[in-house]
Amino acid sequence: MLCQAASQMGIKVAILDPLENCPASSVCHEHVIGSFDDGDTVREFAKRCGVLTVEIEHVDAVTLEKLEKQGVVCEPKASTIMIIQDKYRQKEHFSKFGIPLPDFVQVDNLSSIEKAGEMFGYPLMVKSKRLAYDGRGNAVAHNKRELSSVVSSLGGFEHGLYVERWTPFAKELSVIVARSRDGSTVCYPVVQTIHKDNICHVVEAPAEIPEKMKTLATGVAEKAVKSLEGAGVFAVELFLTNDNQVLLNEVAPRPHNSGHQTIEACYTSQYEQHLRAILGFPLGDPSMKAPAAVMYNILGEDEGESGFVLAHQMIGRALNIPGASVHWYAKPEMRKQRKMGHITIVGPSMFSVKARLDKLLQRDNDGLTKVRPRAAIIMGSDSDLPVMKDAKEVLEKFNIPFELTIVSAHRTPQRMYEYALSAKERGLEVIIAGAGGAAHLPGMVASLTTVPVIGVPIWTKSLQGMDSLLSIVQMPKGIPVATVAIGNAENAGLLAVRMLASRDPDLSDRMNKYQQNLEDSVLEKARLLEELGPDDYLKQYMKP
Amino acid sequence: MLCQAASQMGIKVAILDPLENCPASSVCHEHVIGSFDDGDTVREFAKRCGVLTVEIEHVDAVTLEKLEKQGVVCEPKASTIMIIQDKYRQKEHFSKFGIPLPDFVQVDNLSSIEKAGEMFGYPLMVKSKRLAYDGRGNAVAHNKRELSSVVSSLGGFEHGLYVERWTPFAKELSVIVARSRDGSTVCYPVVQTIHKDNICHVVEAPAEIPEKMKTLATGVAEKAVKSLEGAGVFAVELFLTNDNQVLLNEVAPRPHNSGHQTIEACYTSQYEQHLRAILGFPLGDPSMKAPAAVMYNILGEDEGESGFVLAHQMIGRALNIPGASVHWYAKPEMRKQRKMGHITIVGPSMFSVKARLDKLLQRDNDGLTKVRPRAAIIMGSDSDLPVMKDAKEVLEKFNIPFELTIVSAHRTPQRMYEYALSAKERGLEVIIAGAGGAAHLPGMVASLTTVPVIGVPIWTKSLQGMDSLLSIVQMPKGIPVATVAIGNAENAGLLAVRMLASRDPDLSDRMNKYQQNLEDSVLEKARLLEELGPDDYLKQYMKP
Repeated sequence: MLCQAASQMGIKVAILDPLENCPASSVCHEHVIGSFDDGDTVREFAKRCGVLTVEIEHVDAVTLEKLEKQGVVCEPKASTIMIIQDKYRQKEHFSKFGIPLPDFVQVDNLSSIEKAGEMFGYPLMVKSKRLAYDGRGNAVAHNKRELSSVVSSLGGFEHGLYVERWTPFAKELSVIVARSRDGSTVCYPVVQTIHKDNICHVVEAPAEIPEKMKTLATGVAEKAVKSLEGAGVFAVELFLTNDNQVLLNEVAPRPHNSGHQTIEACYTSQYEQHLRAILGFPLGDPSMKAPAAVMYNILGEDEGESGFVLAHQMIGRALNIPGASVHWYAKPEMRKQRKMGHITIVGPSMFSVKARLDKLLQRDNDGLTKVRPRAAIIMGSDSDLPVMKDAKEVLEKFNIPFELTIVSAHRTPQRMYEYALSAKERGLEVIIAGAGGAAHLPGMVASLTTVPVIGVPIWTKSLQGMDSLLSIVQMPKGIPVATVAIGNAENAGLLAVRMLASRDPDLSDRMNKYQQNLEDSVLEKARLLEELGPDDYLKQYMKP
Repeated sequence: MLCQAASQMGIKVAILDPLENCPASSVCHEHVIGSFDDGDTVREFAKRCGVLTVEIEHVDAVTLEKLEKQGVVCEPKASTIMIIQDKYRQKEHFSKFGIPLPDFVQVDNLSSIEKAGEMFGYPLMVKSKRLAYDGRGNAVAHNKRELSSVVSSLGGFEHGLYVERWTPFAKELSVIVARSRDGSTVCYPVVQTIHKDNICHVVEAPAEIPEKMKTLATGVAEKAVKSLEGAGVFAVELFLTNDNQVLLNEVAPRPHNSGHQTIEACYTSQYEQHLRAILGFPLGDPSMKAPAAVMYNILGEDEGESGFVLAHQMIGRALNIPGASVHWYAKPEMRKQRKMGHITIVGPSMFSVKARLDKLLQRDNDGLTKVRPRAAIIMGSDSDLPVMKDAKEVLEKFNIPFELTIVSAHRTPQRMYEYALSAKERGLEVIIAGAGGAAHLPGMVASLTTVPVIGVPIWTKSLQGMDSLLSIVQMPKGIPVATVAIGNAENAGLLAVRMLASRDPDLSDRMNKYQQNLEDSVLEKARLLEELGPDDYLKQYMKP
């Protein structure tokens, strides 16, 4: 993927890979067959390059360090790769720089790991220091008795082990940070990674977490990258804990699986960004050009031919899904759980891309995805429903996912407060609120969210709805409510559709047709009235 | 670019190109060096391929036709390439299928061209039938005397010439149409192409033309492609005339310069689409994933080294422009006017991408680009301005481009009608309309556009604005107006910002901060009131 980005920009890439028909071989400018873990080979290879970079951290970093001393430009620096290669050293490093981490401690023998178990409690995460990825090199001891078997499953203490306090996390997040050769950095939007059997399964971009959590995660990621040396793209994997802390899990000093969706979803992909960074070009815009994306890894589901058949069925489905892009790495061998390719789905909302992912994975929509409403219809009392149902019918006609419920400003103030505060985070783009009498619901909700609120004054017996109208429309400066006519929930629905249509060409088109139909139906009436004359028209169409 | 798309999907492409280090050579799976205009070479090459396709129409179509008879799959069909190769035959073909075209006639000698001159008038477009591209093979005779020199500049009548009636066009458009092997078609959004010295200079996507013109152009393009045989992507170049006709200029049976921006701007690029089409895969979604894009061709500005220096300066500027992607074709030789690469700028609005293009080209913003307002503030009379200025101040504070003007429903009905009808096309996303008394402006505008309309009732002496409020809010079903409090233009502005913020994370963030500030300022007053006590507070802060 780095070579594909380079090809587009006319940048020539030579690759060092031991496999003759490795994926990059058909898209690079030159392929040197050899091991990136062998000093002499790396030294020879470096002679061909203006800049050396890595897309795997398990390389001969000692040789890279020597090359740097000879004046070869390596980005990121060998020092960074050395820190990253050893996960324990990585934790020590970040801890020194004040980056929040789960508690960890090195363990050299059974007594030290037992002591750690007492200190951190169980379950206890036991990890190899080196050559660990995709869950390999990690194991969990659920109690003291399991410790020795877990240690031997990881190759014994002589292999180099440490333990981590178990982190009960709400979500796993990742932030791709790019740093240029002049030290400036840019951060990609925070994404959520969903793992299955310790392997990245799905990435959702952007992560559906509160804005302040995003700021926190981005801050931790940027600080972590700034503590390392050299240019390039870095992936910072994070835990969001149940008590809203952000802890660093680990860092990859290269383009990363959690940034694959940047190819289609962001102005500058992580691959182009890596090239810009290591070549000393200005960094590109990391923001998303489309509202939402999900990335799905195509893992080998079986060995050999049968694995290929299953993968091809998946690709066949993807080709039928709007906004889906298929990446097939053309790895020569299929193996179970091997990353063979990925599929990115980009679309106008997280709701729609998740629904498409469900279709790709042939899952029920009730599984991972709940229909995420774009609009809400709320009312102070069920007695408002006969009026508010007209708004519901409009949203249904325009096929807009919505929720409808009772929220009373006066009788359920706590519920109203929570409902309004969470509206934006839950993806609501417009709220229609109906209320009668001393109608405080629309205004109160508007004061608690930035989502536009449409108020429907409900007709009242004593004042014919004038009380409702005036208490909804006469809001103080700062808190607007879009008020419609007394009892006209249909117009509230139509106004909501207009708002949603402003950046949705398809919806805008349908609204256009709707208005055309309105016009046509009046013109038809005019034609009939002229044809029949007023007397017959009254008889036929205006029967009492 | 076709190979780049194929590489991503793991599709293996062999290319036939006479040049050893041609651009595709480093990104294809196999490069056969040879002429695509030589029968034997093409026949040999075909043996390696599951499907044969072209990305230039000047190939040996006779051989392709023979290969087709032997069962080789060629997409599009040789018959199509033959029609396209001969521009006169192409016109005859499309004319037969009822596609609107500028008038044309074959000319074989001086008397027939003079007759054509009398028939079509001058200036007269004289064209070669074959091997014409980028304006080569076209010449203009401004009067009868110029005919013979124009004819000899094109190689004489024996070269095969025809003439066309001069088309005074308002815009040049292009529609990329894809047809799959099962005959189904999809059309990309209509784009505007801007030529300079007969070579494509800039492409704007989507074209800024009325919706019905888009429908018309798409219809003509689709009909033209359906008259041709075979699968693939076709570019249909069109003229939009001053009297709102759409005429076909010519068709390219392959991915085209006017579709380069689809790589970054659309869910499925024209290249991936071409692969899907010729391989019999389902066609992908051609719609845009970002609101706007411009494509700029990097043409050689000078021969050799000096040309490279100038191109690199351009690329250097592009790397500093957000949303800009650089494509450098790595053609081995630089020549003046040669297409050496292109730059695509994708962004949230046509206004912003045009402004960035101006920056790239180091031109003044007053040149090509006008600020395109997202919001409008209109009022029935200048006497409403002291109220409506509050809306203006809000839009300014949130940095939203807007227009402000007087449009009276009663005193300038024609202007009001045209203003409302064109609102959507001009890019307006929300309209704030202030009116007093029998306040018809907001409702009338709302009835003529799908853009959401916010109504501000203006205070009146006789009825204290109640007349304004009721005539704005009490709209019939079907035509909603978002009404705010009497005289509360500030809230109208804030409501507009909320609407615009729903898909604009940055704006949404600023709206959040604004509401936070509102809350903070009230809390500050509460603190002061408690600290000072009511008597001192009244004295200090509520002086009469």
